[in-house]
Parts: sequence; structure tokens; C-alpha cells
Amino acid sequence: MRPDGRKNDELRKVEIKRDFIPSAEGSVLIEMGNTRVICTASIEDKVPPFLRDQKKGWVTAEYGMIPRATHTRSTRESTSGRIGGRTHEIQRLIGRSLRAVVDLELLGERTVWIDCDVIQADGGTRTASITGAFIALNDALYRAMRNGMIERNPVKDYLAAISVGVINGEPRLDLCYAEDSAAEVDMNVVMTGESKVVEIQGTAELEPFSRNMLDTLLSLAEKGVGELIKIQREIVKSNMLKY
Amino acid sequence: MRPDGRKNDELRKVEIKRDFIPSAEGSVLIEMGNTRVICTASIEDKVPPFLRDQKKGWVTAEYGMIPRATHTRSTRESTSGRIGGRTHEIQRLIGRSLRAVVDLELLGERTVWIDCDVIQADGGTRTASITGAFIALNDALYRAMRNGMIERNPVKDYLAAISVGVINGEPRLDLCYAEDSAAEVDMNVVMTGESKVVEIQGTAELEPFSRNMLDTLLSLAEKGVGELIKIQREIVKSNMLKY
Amino acid sequence: MRPDGRKNDELRKVEIKRDFIPSAEGSVLIEMGNTRVICTASIEDKVPPFLRDQKKGWVTAEYGMIPRATHTRSTRESTSGRIGGRTHEIQRLIGRSLRAVVDLELLGERTVWIDCDVIQADGGTRTASITGAFIALNDALYRAMRNGMIERNPVKDYLAAISVGVINGEPRLDLCYAEDSAAEVDMNVVMTGESKVVEIQGTAELEPFSRNMLDTLLSLAEKGVGELIKIQREIVKSNMLKY
Amino acid sequence: MRPDGRKNDELRKVEIKRDFIPSAEGSVLIEMGNTRVICTASIEDKVPPFLRDQKKGWVTAEYGMIPRATHTRSTRESTSGRIGGRTHEIQRLIGRSLRAVVDLELLGERTVWIDCDVIQADGGTRTASITGAFIALNDALYRAMRNGMIERNPVKDYLAAISVGVINGEPRLDLCYAEDSAAEVDMNVVMTGESKVVEIQGTAELEPFSRNMLDTLLSLAEKGVGELIKIQREIVKSNMLKY
Amino acid sequence: MRPDGRKNDELRKVEIKRDFIPSAEGSVLIEMGNTRVICTASIEDKVPPFLRDQKKGWVTAEYGMIPRATHTRSTRESTSGRIGGRTHEIQRLIGRSLRAVVDLELLGERTVWIDCDVIQADGGTRTASITGAFIALNDALYRAMRNGMIERNPVKDYLAAISVGVINGEPRLDLCYAEDSAAEVDMNVVMTGESKVVEIQGTAELEPFSRNMLDTLLSLAEKGVGELIKIQREIVKSNMLKY
Amino acid sequence: MRPDGRKNDELRKVEIKRDFIPSAEGSVLIEMGNTRVICTASIEDKVPPFLRDQKKGWVTAEYGMIPRATHTRSTRESTSGRIGGRTHEIQRLIGRSLRAVVDLELLGERTVWIDCDVIQADGGTRTASITGAFIALNDALYRAMRNGMIERNPVKDYLAAISVGVINGEPRLDLCYAEDSAAEVDMNVVMTGESKVVEIQGTAELEPFSRNMLDTLLSLAEKGVGELIKIQREIVKSNMLKY
Repeated sequence: MRPDGRKNDELRKVEIKRDFIPSAEGSVLIEMGNTRVICTASIEDKVPPFLRDQKKGWVTAEYGMIPRATHTRSTRESTSGRIGGRTHEIQRLIGRSLRAVVDLELLGERTVWIDCDVIQADGGTRTASITGAFIALNDALYRAMRNGMIERNPVKDYLAAISVGVINGEPRLDLCYAEDSAAEVDMNVVMTGESKVVEIQGTAELEPFSRNMLDTLLSLAEKGVGELIKIQREIVKSNMLKY
Repeated sequence: MRPDGRKNDELRKVEIKRDFIPSAEGSVLIEMGNTRVICTASIEDKVPPFLRDQKKGWVTAEYGMIPRATHTRSTRESTSGRIGGRTHEIQRLIGRSLRAVVDLELLGERTVWIDCDVIQADGGTRTASITGAFIALNDALYRAMRNGMIERNPVKDYLAAISVGVINGEPRLDLCYAEDSAAEVDMNVVMTGESKVVEIQGTAELEPFSRNMLDTLLSLAEKGVGELIKIQREIVKSNMLKY
Repeated sequence: MRPDGRKNDELRKVEIKRDFIPSAEGSVLIEMGNTRVICTASIEDKVPPFLRDQKKGWVTAEYGMIPRATHTRSTRESTSGRIGGRTHEIQRLIGRSLRAVVDLELLGERTVWIDCDVIQADGGTRTASITGAFIALNDALYRAMRNGMIERNPVKDYLAAISVGVINGEPRLDLCYAEDSAAEVDMNVVMTGESKVVEIQGTAELEPFSRNMLDTLLSLAEKGVGELIKIQREIVKSNMLKY
Repeated sequence: MRPDGRKNDELRKVEIKRDFIPSAEGSVLIEMGNTRVICTASIEDKVPPFLRDQKKGWVTAEYGMIPRATHTRSTRESTSGRIGGRTHEIQRLIGRSLRAVVDLELLGERTVWIDCDVIQADGGTRTASITGAFIALNDALYRAMRNGMIERNPVKDYLAAISVGVINGEPRLDLCYAEDSAAEVDMNVVMTGESKVVEIQGTAELEPFSRNMLDTLLSLAEKGVGELIKIQREIVKSNMLKY
Repeated sequence: MRPDGRKNDELRKVEIKRDFIPSAEGSVLIEMGNTRVICTASIEDKVPPFLRDQKKGWVTAEYGMIPRATHTRSTRESTSGRIGGRTHEIQRLIGRSLRAVVDLELLGERTVWIDCDVIQADGGTRTASITGAFIALNDALYRAMRNGMIERNPVKDYLAAISVGVINGEPRLDLCYAEDSAAEVDMNVVMTGESKVVEIQGTAELEPFSRNMLDTLLSLAEKGVGELIKIQREIVKSNMLKY
Repeated sequence: MRPDGRKNDELRKVEIKRDFIPSAEGSVLIEMGNTRVICTASIEDKVPPFLRDQKKGWVTAEYGMIPRATHTRSTRESTSGRIGGRTHEIQRLIGRSLRAVVDLELLGERTVWIDCDVIQADGGTRTASITGAFIALNDALYRAMRNGMIERNPVKDYLAAISVGVINGEPRLDLCYAEDSAAEVDMNVVMTGESKVVEIQGTAELEPFSRNMLDTLLSLAEKGVGELIKIQREIVKSNMLKY
């Protein structure tokens, strides 16, 4: 049995509080079980140097944790003076994933900064960040369109992410921390509203896995992402995501 | 008139959500108007090098902001690779203030880490941090006592903080950001449940001030801190703060 | 047609010069087309703090580039004072992949440091690093066994990696830089001698992809890894990899 | 009795050697007992980014210590690679205090850099820095006026600072290090030639204090600052500070 | 006897592989015994800020080591986050030496970046770097002339470097690591094709030395540099170095 | 003619104020013309890791400048967060030079920290640092002997340093900044009381030089160092330097 009594193909309870940080152009508090992340989207009127004069925009992400998001306190990365490898890996994943559903030319010479700050961590913080950040991003860009800053909302499709894994030989959906740290295989999948893959990152922590198992895990992930996107659709509703 | 219609000697609306981060020994979300800070307290079973073998403990604080706590996005201090002077100044103030109401010998060879993470900033973040951190600290230490880790709660007295300032010659209580940035004089006062001063930091941003004005500001601060401690008392109740 | 005239399912020319840095316990210069990486393995008689007293060892990797490995000179990471996100991501991937084929308990309380230094970069530096590092690692551990430091070689299986991608809708094996930067989909796959998956990292740089395409890419990768492991077997021969 | 036999309301011996670093626009060596600080003022023809095009100038300060200024050698902050919290706190205080007596519009788009380098530390280094830096600043700006760089000296009033504290319940003026480290209350006060308060920073290191005690300490500080400004007036004389 | 059986005035075996990194404007792998260094030269179309608008160029150098260049693995400087003093000293020496034989006005407003990356270290890495970098530099500038970027090759003379030292009272040429670490005196000499001195750095590691000994060492160095420049001449041949 | 009217073989005016920082075990303010350096020596009861359990001590040096030591203000190295190459080079030179005249075994498992802080810079700061630091070092060690910490003073010989250079073809002694920045050749020489060479660092900034010129410069340096050591002897007198 799973630590919280869920079935193997069951998501944790999901809650998305929109406009959680009212001063931001877009923001949510997303909760998936005990994992809670504040996601904000901020629009800046310039692009990074490598994009200058290319008539397109950029979406980039930063990821952090408050020190006591974890069960025992972690050192603050600002105090240690460097961003760790795990943080780098996660924020690059978030940025890449979101860019895949944004038309950067429609965005124009602007940067959308996505900030995902974990206030409680119980596994799946990177996937919750992506699912939540999508709403913050879409809200920010929809408002930019309403304010006349851009003509159309450059968001092209829904986007959500989920973790899957193998524990004691069993494929499971949406691992909590206790499961994640015991998993033989750990995989994060980012997919669109059309069930296309944007990112897949699978790791055999303990035991290399077969292509059959990979297929099983992908189906599980597809089911999970489907349910998350259903929740996103209800939040965003007809008047928002509009391409 | 004040930007939010308050009287000059009126606090903003205060809300303190206890145990906001359930995994921490003590935690709150404190909201004073639009200023919102997550405060956690974590107990570690060792002391910093300079206190080794002195049979007493330590209370220290760290302070951060999520990038979009401010009206326009600020750079993450972990990204810039260094903690700014303002952050240093604030976290030293929070730590010093809390140590003044903790019996460090009763605490034993332990460190209490206080983390104050601002999720929305509208002036008075350092004083809200102190007021909120007091509850997180007391909760953590009361529980440590209940668990038998320490014999008595080493918290000696209540502690709260408030800002006061002079705007257009008028003394005002609990400045919001718009007031703070226009103030001629800006002062932060930390006081105990017995109305004693723990910290006073007054700055003539624009205009040096008389000792009379200082006295007026102190009376205003004493009123504000009194109201905050009344709120703390209701939260903590009889069964908690116990020396 | 591909820039270098290869067929879509054809590897670039592979060369592995063993013991390229004679002072190291294991080392190779691996060349895949114009991508050239020096890989060394160094055995240290202690483990990182988080593994202390657990009677097992660790394999970790670092990755670097000489500034002129790229077409135009890149800034040295020691000069900029920080390791970039890409470097972090790659060195974590190399370490994780190699750990999957090492029996860490057999290794004992030792750390194997893998260093992959790219001297020329033309796409696929992370996968070439893994394929080359496997030989350096196995050589170092086989020698450790011969010297009586460990009883058996803790390497459990062969390990190699390759990139695959989609360019103009066509799946291709072993992308060079020109292809990599134009790819719609980019995927790195790490597999064992038994064709099991150790790592899969797929990214839709431009266009989300179907599960069918994922399957096609995996088959292509399996073919490529198979050929690389055949080369590894010839190098390592019977007397080396021995579990 | 005080360690050096002084009365409770008595300053240490003060000496100010003007033009100690002849290459600087303004400079002094200030000695208060065994505390010795080199203060220099340097005028730069540009302002920090946040002031650009606002037709006013800026005064900023940096503070350092040679490693052997303290009784046992301290680590150099350039070697540790980061500025400590105490240094940040002090240099912000010095800068803020001096800005309060400078008419930044008269200064024009220029920055005055104040550097305070402690060569021997026996308590009160931050207050000695402010008192000494005032002379360096005024000399630099008076000369700028004589050279025709600015029309009038933008210095509006004298400025000096002193520490006061409570030791064994007794209020004392101008604490040396031995007193400072034993003080129940420690306060730094910065005042103008008109006895107005520019900065007050009081800390209950051990024992929260009453508003009566605060008042007593302020009177003591006012006496001390008065004597320091008398010394400044003799140095500056009629032909210098001129608004 | 010397560890490798050489005579006291004998160089180690020298090999210079030209165009070792084909993507660079100039590059070599230089091997002197077991010391092996990759040197590249890259031309950039701008100068550092301190040379702006002075109608001349700059030559600068960076020096690194792969971690396992040494007998036991060294920490990567990018990982430690700072460049060590030894590295700084060496790269300043390389840059200064090369600038002495380049006509910076002929070079025009361009920077030549020299990168010396040691892949195996057995003493004399800084002198091998200079000798090798000279070829990389000349190749890069000769090609720039051929491409019409500059009119004439700004290289004015040959340049090579060698170490000499005193071991057990005996002067020796071209120390290997074992000799270097036991030397009483250690000296590095950089000279031109006309036997003029560009740099001399002599250190009495254990025993101050007489001016007579200095003279003997210089003669030994002159002999060594002469032989190196002979090798350089053969590589460069008539069609290259051309002033 | 030289900028300050000196003869080519004439030193600037030298003044050494002993015990300038009374809290240090040894300290001086050395002035050579307008170059002024505070040198302190501090004895610590441990050695760096690489010397542990070798029954010998260490002498190490750090070098800094107050920002306004130079004609225009320089950035503080603590602010920039890194020590520059020039600083690294100089502090390594000072440490190496002083170690050459100290019997590290007699010193025992202790470190002497030498700090050289330039308060005014007019050329020759590194050589003035060495000449001054010698006195601070000897004073510290003589006192350590008097206190019974060590049996004999481990200082073996006098040590001083001077710069020489070629300006307009003329060899000159003890260059000031104006000369230094125009010199064709710049050389620093460190010598003992017995006129032996400890360090020689010569650089052809503009024009490679002959061995004849090197000889002339060495003679000039020998004269200068001789005069400096005469001054040192008068300061140290018979009762101090004692081996």
C-alpha cells in the first residue's frame, strides 16, 4: 500500500489558488498533497543579450525553496553563495517546458520571468512548479493582451507535468517524498493538452529498466497529466487561454 | 489622509495563521495589510563555534524575499551570489531582538534558526517578521518542552515590533510602502510585553529630528506594540508561553 | 542529407585512446567525429559526508570544457566564478548514469571521481563523456582489484550513451552540433549491455512529439548504444570487466 | 570604575590628523583612545544607476578593517570573498548619516565615496568613522567649491556620532571595547551641530530598557556629540563649512 | 644522476603538434617529457575597457589544469569558485611574455586570447605553456594576415621559456616535478630569438644564492631557450613569422 | 632628470615607525617617499593542513590597499568579491621571501601571518612591504622568544627588497609610480644581509633586455638593498635579531 493510502494510478489532492500574490501579473499557490509551491509570472520589457534584435521573446524560470520547506532545515542558497546543481537542473527544466507552448515571436521582445518558490516539499516539486507556473504564465499573458501590450495571447496549448516511478516493481503515479526516495525508477513527464510529450526525464536510480516498463510509466503519466489539464481548463476557462 | 484611509495612530489589519508550514517546529504566516511573511522556527542540536562548551544556546535569523514580493521583480540573492546589505541588516536585527527574550542557558546547547521569508512586501517587513517570528519561536520551544527536550520554555517575555515615521511633519504608526518611501523620519521599535525597549532604530532620511519628536514617535510605537502583543497573547494563550 | 553525409541511423567515427593520461588510474581520449573528450577516473579513499559509515562507496562526475572547444571562445567557468546550469546538469547526468552500473557496496568506502574535459565540441559531448568514462572507470576499478584494494570489480554491466533527435521531421542518430541546434526534438539515452534504460532525457525544443515518435527514437538509440558497447567490449576484453 | 579611569560622562582623548592621505580630496586619521580610523573622501563624476538623470548626487560609504586592527587577527573580507553582516550594517549607517547633512541637489550628478578603514579597534569604530568622515567629506567638498567644480559647499550642518551604554546599571559615554562587550544596553547616536538626531540605534544586548533610561542615554550622547562638534569646528574653522 | 637519466644541461624530449584543436585560429599540443599542454589562440574583435580608443590591441592569457593532470587529483578551480594565486601568477606571466614580442599597434583594436590547459603536469608547465603558446599565437596572427584582417603579422621575434634550478648544489636545465620540488633555487627564464631576456623569475626556495650562481643559471637557460627556438623555427618555417 | 630630482642610484627617503599598531606582536609603518605601508606580524598556534604533523611552521602574507591609496579610488577587493591577480602575485612574493630567512623548524608548529596594507601607493609597494614586514616579523619572533614561546629567534638573516628599472635607456633605483609606469624594464630584487639573492623578478614591459643590462640592474639593486639593511640594523639593534 502507498503511504497515504492512494491507488497506484491516483493523483494526490490538487489545489490551485489563483492570484495568490496580487502584485504579480500572474501568480498561483499550487498544492499537490503536502507539496506547495508559489508560482509567479513577471513580464519584463527586454530580452537577454543572445536574443537581442531577433524580434522574439523569452520565457525563463527560477526555482527556490524556503529553508524549512524540507523536513529538516536546508541551507539557504543565498547564504551558501551558489545555486546547487539540483536547482539549476530544475529551473532549466521549467523554463524549457514552458517555452514549448509559447509562441516567442508573438510575445515580442519581452521576457517572462517565472519564479517557483517551494514553501513545503513532499516530492514532485518540479512537476507541481510546471503545472502551477502554466496558470501564472497564461494569466500574465492574457492580461498583457487585455492591456494592449500584445495582440494575441502567445500561449499555444495547455501544459502540465507529473512524476511516475517504480516502487517494489510497481508503477505508481505522483510520488510523494517517501516513495520518491525509495523508487527504483523515477520519471518526470511534461505533456500538452494534446497529449504530446514536451519533456521526459527518466532515471534508473537503482535498477535499469526495460522499454516495456517505460511504456507503462508513460501511460500512467499521460493519465495524470490529463487530469491536471482538466483542472487547468476549469481554472482558465474560455475567456483566458486564447490563441 | 493616509493612502489606505487609516488614522495616524492606527495599525493595519493583522492576521497570524499558526502552523502554516506544518513540517516546522513552529511557523506562522503573518499578514499586516499587504505585507505577508512566512516565519518558521527550527531547532538544531548544536551551537555555532563561538559558543561551543559554554552551556548555552543561540537564536539566529535569516531573511529573504521571493523575487515578486515587490511591485517589480527583484533579483534573487542566490542568483546574484551575495546577500545584500539590507538583508544582512534585517536578519541581524531579527536575531538580536529575539535573543533578548530567550534565556539562552535554559535553551541549552541548541540553535533556534528563525527564517522569515517575505512573500509580499508593502512596508514594515522587518517588524512583521519579528512579531510573527516570536510566535513561531515560542511554539517551537513550547513543543520542545512538551517533548522533554528542555525542562522549561526559555521564552521570558512577549516581543513585537512596529514601524513609526514622520510624513509631512505628522507622526504615523505602521507605515505602508508608499508612506515609508516618502517619510522624513523612519523608526523601527521592538518592545516586550512589559513595554521595555529591546531595539530602537531611527533614521532621519530627509530631516534631522528633535528629541521631542523622538518621544512622540516612541509613544506611538508603544501603543502599536501593545496592540500587537494583545493579539499574540490571544494566540499563545495560557498554556503556551510559560517561564 | 546530413551535414557529414551520414545515413540517419549511422554513428560518427568512434575512437577511444586508452590510458591517454598515464598518471590516472583510468583514462581515455574518446573521439566521436569532431567531438573529443578526455575522461579520467581517480579513486579516493573516503566518501562524501552523507555516506559516512554506511559501508558503501560513491561515483561522482565533473565536466568541463577548455575555452576553445567551441567554435568561438567561451568564458572559463573558473574565471566567471560559478558553474553554469548546463555544466551542473551534465555532470549530474554522468554521475547518476555510471552509479547505475556500479555495485556501491562492493566498492567499499571509496569515491571514484570521474572527470570529463571536452577539448573539442561538436554535439553529443555528454553522451561521449558517458561512453568514454565507462572505460576509464572500469580500468580504474579493475586495477584496484588487481592491486588487492577491492576483491571484485564492482562494475556490473557495460554502459554507453547516444543522442538522437528529429530534424525536419526525420529521426536521426548521433547528432553533430549543426543538427543539434536545429533539432525539433533532442533526446539523450543511456543504456546497459543488456539494452536496459538507465537514463532517458527527451526535450521538445520546438515541437511537442507523439509517443510513436518517442518509440522510434528509442529504437534508434538502442541501435547506436549497441554499436558503442560492441566497441567497448573489444577494448575491455575478457580480462577486464569482471563481476 | 571604568577600565581607563574615565568618568562616566567623559570622552576618550580625541585626535584628528587632517590630510593624512594627501592624494585624497579629503582625508583624516581620527583617534579616539585606542580606536584609530583612516577616513577618505573621493569625488567621482557620476551617480549610481538608480539616480541617473535626477540632477542630484549621492554620498556612499565603505568600511573595512586591517586584519590586525583587533586583538587577535581577523580574516580579511577580500580573502573570505564576502562582506560580513556587521560591515554591511556599519557602512550603510555611515552613508545614511552623512547624506542627512548634504544637499544632494547642490552636489550635482556626482558621488562622494567615503572610505573608513580601521587600523586599530577598541570600541566605537563606527561612531569614530562618522565623526572623522565628516571632516574628510567637508574638506573634499570645500575644495571642490574652490576649484569651481560646485558653486557652494553642499554640507548643511556639522555631524558627529558617539556610543553610549549601560554597564552594571550605570549609563556611560564613549564605550571602549571591554565595556562594549559587557554592556547591558548599547546605543549609537548621530547628531547635528543643532543637536538634532540623525540616527539612533539602541540595542538591549542583555536587558530590555525603560524609556527613562533611553532618555538618560540620549542626554549623555548629546553631551558627547556636542564636545566632538566643538573639536570639528576648530578644525574646519570659519573658512570651510559654508553653506 | 637526474631522475630520467638526462645530463644537467639537457632538455627533455620536446614535441609540438600543430593545429591540435582545428576549430581554433591557432593551437598546439606541446609535450616536454611528461608535461603536456594544449595551447590555443583566439582573436576577438574588441579590446578590454582600459585600452578603448587607443588604436592598439592586447594579448592576454588564461591557464588551467584538468583535475587529473597531477599525480593525485586536484580540485577544479571552477568548483572551488575562485582562481588560485598560483594560476593567477602563471597566467599573468604568460600574457606579459607574449605581449613583449607583439607589436600591439599593428594588431589593431583586437584581443588575442591565449588559453593554456595542462593535461599532464610534470614540472615546467608555465614555461612549456609560453613556448607552445608562441606557435599558436603566430599561427593565428599569420592566418589573420592571410585573411586580410591585418596587414602584417605583428609578431616581432621568436619567444620561448625554460626552467633552470639548483639541486644539491648543481645547476640543472628543464626540471621535472621531482627535481622542482627538491630544488634549492628555481628560476624561469623567457627569452627572444635574439637571446634577450623578456622575463626572469628566480626564487630561493631553500637557500639564497649568489650572483655567480645566477649567472650560471642564466647561461644554462640561454642554451635551453636557444634549442627550443630552433624547434620553433623549423615548425614556423620561412612562410610564417613575418614582420 | 627624475621626477623628484633624485640621482639614478639614490633611494627615496625611508622611515620606519616601529610598533605602529601596538596590539600586534610586531608592526611598522614603513614610508619610502610617498609609498606608505602598514606591516603587522601575528603568531597563530597552528599550521596550514599541508604542514600538519611535520614539526615545522609557516610564514604567510596577505597584501591589501585602502581604496584611496591610489591617485584615483580603486574598488575594494572585498566588495568585488575576489582577490585580483596582482594582489595574489604580490602576497605570494612577500610570503616566499620572508620564509627564505626563517628557520621553519625552529619556529615549531606555528604560523606567522604577515599583513601588508598599503595606505598610500607611489610605486614600489611590494618591495616596501617586504622591507617593512621583515622588522615586524623579527619583532614578533624576538618577543615570542622573550616570552618563552620559542627557544631561539628563528630569523636567520636580514632581508630587504628594492625595485630597479630602465627608463629612457637609463638604469634607475627605487622607481616611483611615474617612473614605474614608463619603464622599459622593471625588476624587483629581494636580498639578504649577506647580499645573496632571495627573489629576482624582472620584466621587459616594452623592450627585451640584454644580460649586461641585467647585471647593471642587479648591482644597482644590491646597493639599494645594502642601504635598507643598514637602516634595519639600526632599528633592530644588537638585542633583537639573534639566531
